[in-house]
Amino acid sequence: MPAGSSPVVVVAPSSFKGSLEADEVCAAVARGLARVWPDVEVRARPMADGGEGTVKAILSAGGEPRRFEVSGAAGTRRAAAVGIITTPEGPTAVLEAAEVVGITEPDGMAVPVTERSSVGLGELVRELLDAGFRRFLVGLGGSSTNDGGAGLLVGLGARLLDGDGRALAATPAQLARVARVDVGALDERLATATFTILSDVDSPLCGPSGATFVFGPQKGVIPAQLTTLDAAIAHYAAVAEAAFGRRVSTERGAGAAGGLGFALQLLGGRVESGAEVVAQVLGLDEALADADWAITGEGRSDEQTLLGKTPAVVASHARRAGVPVTLLSGAVDGRALAGLNGVFAGCFTLPSGPMSLAECIATAPALLADRSEQLGRLWKAASELRPRAGKSRG
Amino acid sequence: MPAGSSPVVVVAPSSFKGSLEADEVCAAVARGLARVWPDVEVRARPMADGGEGTVKAILSAGGEPRRFEVSGAAGTRRAAAVGIITTPEGPTAVLEAAEVVGITEPDGMAVPVTERSSVGLGELVRELLDAGFRRFLVGLGGSSTNDGGAGLLVGLGARLLDGDGRALAATPAQLARVARVDVGALDERLATATFTILSDVDSPLCGPSGATFVFGPQKGVIPAQLTTLDAAIAHYAAVAEAAFGRRVSTERGAGAAGGLGFALQLLGGRVESGAEVVAQVLGLDEALADADWAITGEGRSDEQTLLGKTPAVVASHARRAGVPVTLLSGAVDGRALAGLNGVFAGCFTLPSGPMSLAECIATAPALLADRSEQLGRLWKAASELRPRAGKSRG
Repeated sequence: MPAGSSPVVVVAPSSFKGSLEADEVCAAVARGLARVWPDVEVRARPMADGGEGTVKAILSAGGEPRRFEVSGAAGTRRAAAVGIITTPEGPTAVLEAAEVVGITEPDGMAVPVTERSSVGLGELVRELLDAGFRRFLVGLGGSSTNDGGAGLLVGLGARLLDGDGRALAATPAQLARVARVDVGALDERLATATFTILSDVDSPLCGPSGATFVFGPQKGVIPAQLTTLDAAIAHYAAVAEAAFGRRVSTERGAGAAGGLGFALQLLGGRVESGAEVVAQVLGLDEALADADWAITGEGRSDEQTLLGKTPAVVASHARRAGVPVTLLSGAVDGRALAGLNGVFAGCFTLPSGPMSLAECIATAPALLADRSEQLGRLWKAASELRPRAGKSRG
Repeated sequence: MPAGSSPVVVVAPSSFKGSLEADEVCAAVARGLARVWPDVEVRARPMADGGEGTVKAILSAGGEPRRFEVSGAAGTRRAAAVGIITTPEGPTAVLEAAEVVGITEPDGMAVPVTERSSVGLGELVRELLDAGFRRFLVGLGGSSTNDGGAGLLVGLGARLLDGDGRALAATPAQLARVARVDVGALDERLATATFTILSDVDSPLCGPSGATFVFGPQKGVIPAQLTTLDAAIAHYAAVAEAAFGRRVSTERGAGAAGGLGFALQLLGGRVESGAEVVAQVLGLDEALADADWAITGEGRSDEQTLLGKTPAVVASHARRAGVPVTLLSGAVDGRALAGLNGVFAGCFTLPSGPMSLAECIATAPALLADRSEQLGRLWKAASELRPRAGKSRG
């Protein structure tokens, strides 16, 4: 970049959970950088990993937002946002489990986790099949359900039957009683549908590293329920696998979103890194190709960050493009710095001094703009540095 | 600076009050930078402004530390550190009011401010006169006394007399009763002594912007005492000025250190910016001459920072040398950024995320090293940036 000219900066953060959505982060960073370089070219790529915000992030690159009324986790009807985009493979619907059974929704969390169902996601897919779509990107993450994806299957026409052939509700409380999964009435159009599962969770469906044990507690599964619930899901899963003729419960990502990863794989879905798919849809590589600098970030960076979180994905793309990438997060765990240092050209945080989390969240947009401006000022000074006369060292 | 080589970095912070001394700040910053560039050349210039840490900062450039036992503000004997240096003008003693009557000393604060006296500073000057010194740099700031410098004068032989010719104690409580200041017994060697007063305080001795009203409250002067105490000091000052034949109470800096600035000016002292004098003694300009980057900082930066505080002094020297200077403080008031941005190549802070002041102070060395490392990583990436093929903009 010629001395004195403005840089091209790719800004590709994830959301700052509980504080700012990814596009709001992009806007604040851009505001700060523009104070340093009024004509800076900021290429905003608000990222997501399949969880909350995925539809919105993908739509930032274009496409059509739509809403469909479906059942929430507790049965209350709600309008779920869907993104319609065109990929090289054709028209594609982008769904997000969190839009239907989101853990931040008061509805879903109002009933015990054993009564919550993902049936609404099945309803949503059916609506989209009705609308003619056959290609689906399904973001998993941020769900309040832990039903092994039984709700999704039932929403698409499958039936859970007990030993007497009576239909059971698609809730965790009933799964131990499932004697047969009837796939006869499954929507026939699924045969020509393809599902890409966007997730950053590697868990299998069951066992100590499965959906129930790892993610159940944050959804309200109490310790005493863990073993029983895990066993019920394992039982249902074996029955469902027999009906579909596929063994997928031990596959990577089967445990994503309380087992929605399992159900979608039963339907032939393929698991991909949510952040990688979003990066591709948003054209992250194209944005990086002739950029000078990239900034990514998340609410809090720690030792999990390098395990496939959005900033790590952005960093790997930036490295391939030869673009230095700086991390700007709400907080950075000092213990993670040793690892992060190998990846980022500086790791920075929001606070302007000692402050509480609440204060940090309340003033996040201003802090982000200020911090970005300061990063820009340091960047500017260092990038404009030239050898000066009189320097004596080699 | 050639690509890939390590920079020369001048590190010239003030102390982080209540947390780290300036040399400790230098060490932590150097540690962080060395993680980025193992062979980085750090030129540590621990700064001070005349207040606490001035002797230590000046001795970092060489010289001999000494200690003299003198009276503290409440009369308890204490060992005050003095620095002996050689300047172009000859052997010079560096004194610091905070070493004798420091506000962080439990002794001085144990008695009411109306009973505290700066007599120990007079004793200290006398010890140094005995040792043969005639040139004094006296750092003012961080004092617990507000005696108009009466103690200093008495320590040097002057006498405060009441209307009946009886000697009064050199404490604020007695100043209203001073009818005459007897300078007959003043140490004769003062006639050939020169005092340079190091201060960053512009206040006159009395009035609304004087020592009592501005600095009295933080020393324990209660609101109801302010007017009476200010009037007592004004009374004493007029009497003293008559005795010395000099009018200096309205001079800039007369109100520094509870009026020690007044007393030293009565003795012919000249007020200079503490940080400027320290910069000169430490050879800041020489260090900056062929440096690539400078880092300064303080405990907390706000709208006062640009009013002659150490970072502002360092910044003005760096600007003259053409060296970008970055601010790394414990906290930076967001309202001050607009001004600070005109001076610093980036303003950064210690916290790694939301944290309390206590946590920040407790982990300050590690935070400083980490933050400096991250600044270094960003600096490195930006300074190594080169135009890359395929970039299409001008």
